[in-house]
Amino acid sequence: MEIKIMKNILDRNQDRANEVRRILTEKRVTMVNIISSPGAGKTTLLERTCDALKAKIRIGVIEGDITTDRDARRLKKYNIPIVVINTEGGCHLDSHSISKVLDSFDLVNLDVIFVENIGNLVCPSHFDLGESFKLAVVSTTEGDDKPGKYPMLFREAKAVLLNKTDLIPYTNFNFKNFKTDLEKINSLIPLFSVSCTKGDGLGEWYKWISDQIRISE
Amino acid sequence: MEIKIMKNILDRNQDRANEVRRILTEKRVTMVNIISSPGAGKTTLLERTCDALKAKIRIGVIEGDITTDRDARRLKKYNIPIVVINTEGGCHLDSHSISKVLDSFDLVNLDVIFVENIGNLVCPSHFDLGESFKLAVVSTTEGDDKPGKYPMLFREAKAVLLNKTDLIPYTNFNFKNFKTDLEKINSLIPLFSVSCTKGDGLGEWYKWISDQIRISE
Repeated sequence: MEIKIMKNILDRNQDRANEVRRILTEKRVTMVNIISSPGAGKTTLLERTCDALKAKIRIGVIEGDITTDRDARRLKKYNIPIVVINTEGGCHLDSHSISKVLDSFDLVNLDVIFVENIGNLVCPSHFDLGESFKLAVVSTTEGDDKPGKYPMLFREAKAVLLNKTDLIPYTNFNFKNFKTDLEKINSLIPLFSVSCTKGDGLGEWYKWISDQIRISE
Repeated sequence: MEIKIMKNILDRNQDRANEVRRILTEKRVTMVNIISSPGAGKTTLLERTCDALKAKIRIGVIEGDITTDRDARRLKKYNIPIVVINTEGGCHLDSHSISKVLDSFDLVNLDVIFVENIGNLVCPSHFDLGESFKLAVVSTTEGDDKPGKYPMLFREAKAVLLNKTDLIPYTNFNFKNFKTDLEKINSLIPLFSVSCTKGDGLGEWYKWISDQIRISE
């Protein structure tokens, strides 16, 4: 019975996600659904990415947060359109909430919307938001066993960004173990090893994400 | 409608949790529901705690994992009763699964069961397992803003264990900000600052947790 309820919720979510995807395709806007554990560095990644690409790419952001607008306030300095969705306890964004805020953006004048989902390695991977693709962010300080233990996200994502590489020397993170686990789940997935606070390794990420975004004419 | 469904699920969870709590009280077993983000250090905390207290306290463990028995295998060396619950994608343990595995333990010969919940700062806080209390584990590398951004767990928990203090020098973690946020949510909650990998600061934790456990006669 619980499975049936879950299926109904997912079916309704899927219908709305399809609608969101149709609108975004029509307006030539790429939507990136960024998923990670709490504190893996999603907001710092967005800060870096806005810094590097804002002049070339027209960026909008949807900030999913359980409560507070702290992450959005960190991005205010870039003077880009930002909408906050507070889930009030909810553990993931869904396509209904995305659909409701889509009108707040001037879509014809945007190339990409980055969606910072709720910090949660489990639930957000089950809900299609209508995004172009999911991006998995995981930090070295969480340990090298995350792809093996939380496989859904790594199966679904189009790319993985491994953050906080600057902290590897102070932890027992084993890159080989991480990569072996990841490749068992998703053998060809692009992997970017970066430190968003230090700025290490971000060049390849900027190049890849720019290639993914269909620049409007 | 979705809220009503959620209420039904929670009501049924609560009934079973009450039953679990009744059995544990009768058998004089303390149950600690350990909740954190993925990779905050729950398993390492259990390794340290088993090392330090196994001779004095009869410990059992329930390992909640989405898939794999990796955490349980790390604890095998202590030769204590361990049961793994694989949620197969589920984002939290519930009282039904706890109730089902309770029979696997020889409860009259146990003082405490540590439950390592799924790595998730959101969903597990909503589900009473029948535990004696919840313990929040959070690591410095997740950032100092976690109590402010994910308040439910910190409101519900009986104590907070701040792990990975050895990494503070390499991050922008601000202890004062962390503590200020935490005290706004739960002003008198005990806070243990520790490094489970290095062993720093664990003495106070061992003392506190030992005091919480009703040693059977």
